[in-house]
Amino acid sequence: MNEEVKLLIEKADQAIREERFDDLLNFYSDDAVLIVKPGLEARGKAAIKDAFIKIAAYFKNSVVPTQGKMIMIEAGDTILVLSQTLLDADNKETSQYSMERKATYVFRNTNGKWLCVVDNSYGTSLLD
Amino acid sequence: MNEEVKLLIEKADQAIREERFDDLLNFYSDDAVLIVKPGLEARGKAAIKDAFIKIAAYFKNSVVPTQGKMIMIEAGDTILVLSQTLLDADNKETSQYSMERKATYVFRNTNGKWLCVVDNSYGTSLLD
Repeated sequence: MNEEVKLLIEKADQAIREERFDDLLNFYSDDAVLIVKPGLEARGKAAIKDAFIKIAAYFKNSVVPTQGKMIMIEAGDTILVLSQTLLDADNKETSQYSMERKATYVFRNTNGKWLCVVDNSYGTSLLD
Repeated sequence: MNEEVKLLIEKADQAIREERFDDLLNFYSDDAVLIVKPGLEARGKAAIKDAFIKIAAYFKNSVVPTQGKMIMIEAGDTILVLSQTLLDADNKETSQYSMERKATYVFRNTNGKWLCVVDNSYGTSLLD
């Protein structure tokens, strides 16, 4: 487990909870891709910020992400993170999207700094 | 879908079928990690070759991997591949391991060449 990346994910979750989206963008590379929902990608920081604002609104500004069991596969400057991601929200009962996910995140280290390059909270369920 | 990476995966599957393990290693980076089975990683080309020789023996030299539905999430020089991976083998009925998997592969482009850095055919099932 890469403790630095684990801490980054915790801080990113906290930024989402507190809706500090500019802080949140610091965790992503300039060319990062976020899977907003199956079939919809946000590419680059501006699109990712816009997507998080919409996700927050969808969940009535009450979304709380937390990570459960986590596995990291680290290969040089790249890490594949597998993580149980739990989403809580005031309106979770009516969400069209799963609130318990097996996420896949890819982090890359550039010039000594780990950044998220792929944020796919839906994991392999995109294949279903 | 990155067609170059799709072709690399096809060629790697063919090399596995034909047990051309030295050719197979050309698809991996020097620091690549293969998940041999849950809890067991092979790190680097020598360990990966050794693992494939053992996997081939486990399946009585009859293993045939093929990919079904595939999704690629490409972010700059990194690609997360999600893929239905089907394994066939003469003794598949007695395999302790799933023969139908939702795999996660990470490819990285270095100096214009795509290489596999994380080969995790078990996908997020490692979290179960």
